[in-house]
Amino acid sequence: MKKLINNPNDVVKEMIGGLLAAHPSYLRKLDNIDVIVRKDAPVEGKVGLVSGGGSGHEPAHAGYVGYGMLDAACPGAVFTSPTPDQIYEAIKAVDGGKGVLLIIKNYTGDVMNFEMAREMAQMDGMEVDEVIVNDDVAVENSTWTQGRRGIAGTVFVHKIAGAKAQEGASLQEVKRVAEKVIANVRSMGMALTPCTVPAAGKPSFTLAEDEMEIGIGIHGEPGTHREKIKPADEIVEHLMEKIINDLPYKENDEVAVMINGLGATPLMELYVANRKVAEILKDKKIKVYKTYVGEFMTSLEMSGFSITILKLDEELKTLLDAKADTPAFKQL
Amino acid sequence: MKKLINNPNDVVKEMIGGLLAAHPSYLRKLDNIDVIVRKDAPVEGKVGLVSGGGSGHEPAHAGYVGYGMLDAACPGAVFTSPTPDQIYEAIKAVDGGKGVLLIIKNYTGDVMNFEMAREMAQMDGMEVDEVIVNDDVAVENSTWTQGRRGIAGTVFVHKIAGAKAQEGASLQEVKRVAEKVIANVRSMGMALTPCTVPAAGKPSFTLAEDEMEIGIGIHGEPGTHREKIKPADEIVEHLMEKIINDLPYKENDEVAVMINGLGATPLMELYVANRKVAEILKDKKIKVYKTYVGEFMTSLEMSGFSITILKLDEELKTLLDAKADTPAFKQL
Repeated sequence: MKKLINNPNDVVKEMIGGLLAAHPSYLRKLDNIDVIVRKDAPVEGKVGLVSGGGSGHEPAHAGYVGYGMLDAACPGAVFTSPTPDQIYEAIKAVDGGKGVLLIIKNYTGDVMNFEMAREMAQMDGMEVDEVIVNDDVAVENSTWTQGRRGIAGTVFVHKIAGAKAQEGASLQEVKRVAEKVIANVRSMGMALTPCTVPAAGKPSFTLAEDEMEIGIGIHGEPGTHREKIKPADEIVEHLMEKIINDLPYKENDEVAVMINGLGATPLMELYVANRKVAEILKDKKIKVYKTYVGEFMTSLEMSGFSITILKLDEELKTLLDAKADTPAFKQL
Repeated sequence: MKKLINNPNDVVKEMIGGLLAAHPSYLRKLDNIDVIVRKDAPVEGKVGLVSGGGSGHEPAHAGYVGYGMLDAACPGAVFTSPTPDQIYEAIKAVDGGKGVLLIIKNYTGDVMNFEMAREMAQMDGMEVDEVIVNDDVAVENSTWTQGRRGIAGTVFVHKIAGAKAQEGASLQEVKRVAEKVIANVRSMGMALTPCTVPAAGKPSFTLAEDEMEIGIGIHGEPGTHREKIKPADEIVEHLMEKIINDLPYKENDEVAVMINGLGATPLMELYVANRKVAEILKDKKIKVYKTYVGEFMTSLEMSGFSITILKLDEELKTLLDAKADTPAFKQL
């Protein structure tokens, strides 16, 4: 295992230390618990947005805490849900009097712990609601999930619900736009190489030197199938066919595109993939409104990528374009 | 070779295609030549900034073309200098009447080709000057370099000279601040794994499973030595000692920090490293003014990272803080 770490059991603690040292103007940590909040939390008169999940997907989710996106992120152990306690403390810390929305990626453990925290907060009299992101079209049900998994499309939910909350909208309104994103966003990914959870010390699965896995999950959960590596264009064609036919996306639709690296894929290759994505959309007369290329929802040092497509209307375009200022997502 | 590409000989062309498709509001390409310029180039009354180098270091340099940073980037073949023709066309395309500054990373081929282009432009009567970035403290002279190599510190030159140019300063003034950055910036890196140039098809060097290379260059040029992998904190201590003692950085200095991933290193690990960097600077009573953690100057899918430290004064702080809006570097 080649990693730039110290004791494998300390990676999350030390990562948080480095995160806080890097971004003191954006972030602070709650005392005695791993919850990262906006430095100015709670923001009075604004719906609080809380997300989180296992660590190892950075910049998700702490990198999205800041103006116009999240109010708090709860990082669990690597690839492990945060605890109900973490989420409960996050809710309390960001409740600015207009309620709190939980943005949950659809994994059984995450849903269970977020909902437990939600109940704890509701018993305290706080107004808390939730949305569950399930954008991955690859497989129905998976190692740790009932239904579809939540992957990089979650970042669009953070961005758009975050912009709506920043406007001062009600919890109901923020939830409505989050649900609109979820209804219109689809993703699918693939991997060339596995990744290694530090405490495990060895890869969670193996792939032959000439093999790739299509439809893989962000924790290395099995996808739809394995096959010999193909040229990038053929891989993109396959993923795009699954994504486009799912909603389906149609002629004259306007979409946002996210080409997301899983950790070890060079930006060069993500752009090679985006070229083909843009070509396919053009052929189908689907208009690209905005494109994001980079690492948004990673899987440690996995090599591979995912494509996310979000169908936009005027409201979503305005919210997508709104200003955001967080460590990992800035938009002027 | 596991890569998300098509024909290895097409990677640069296809990357540029994907880049233009992703960022049409920021970038355009000159006809018939691989030069990426600001969409609104030439900006009248502003010094034009031109950089470039071999491809494979993305987001450097095309990702830094935009408001408050570069006016043009010339991507060469992978790990290969751009041609004098590319650079000459870039100079012509961004000359807004106040002259053009070339920002060159110190590699013999780059310096030669940028200087040839500069002479061609000067013969046309254009006002062109240059700065050469040589921030890598690891080794004096190297495989492709006389003197010290230019690495991630170059991004601080782009940012600060870019901000000065955006203010409308003269060529002489823009060059002065660029030189001030170069005089005050130092970097050093290390690698856990090599990278593979697509057209070569195999890694340019090898490292044993328990081995790392300290002081490596961004093309895999040899560093100072190889040794068994150590804990991240010990690696950071070694790099920081070399960097800090070089300028040297002293008590009460204020600095900007850049923790730069070389391609395959998870953001989690970069933050683990930053934690130790911040600790060392605090112990030495050197004040961290601002920290950047991410992938700024990569080496394809190399696993490893570099640390860059820039000593700041009031002028550099103001310019570092100035607004920037480019595909890969945004600052509100």
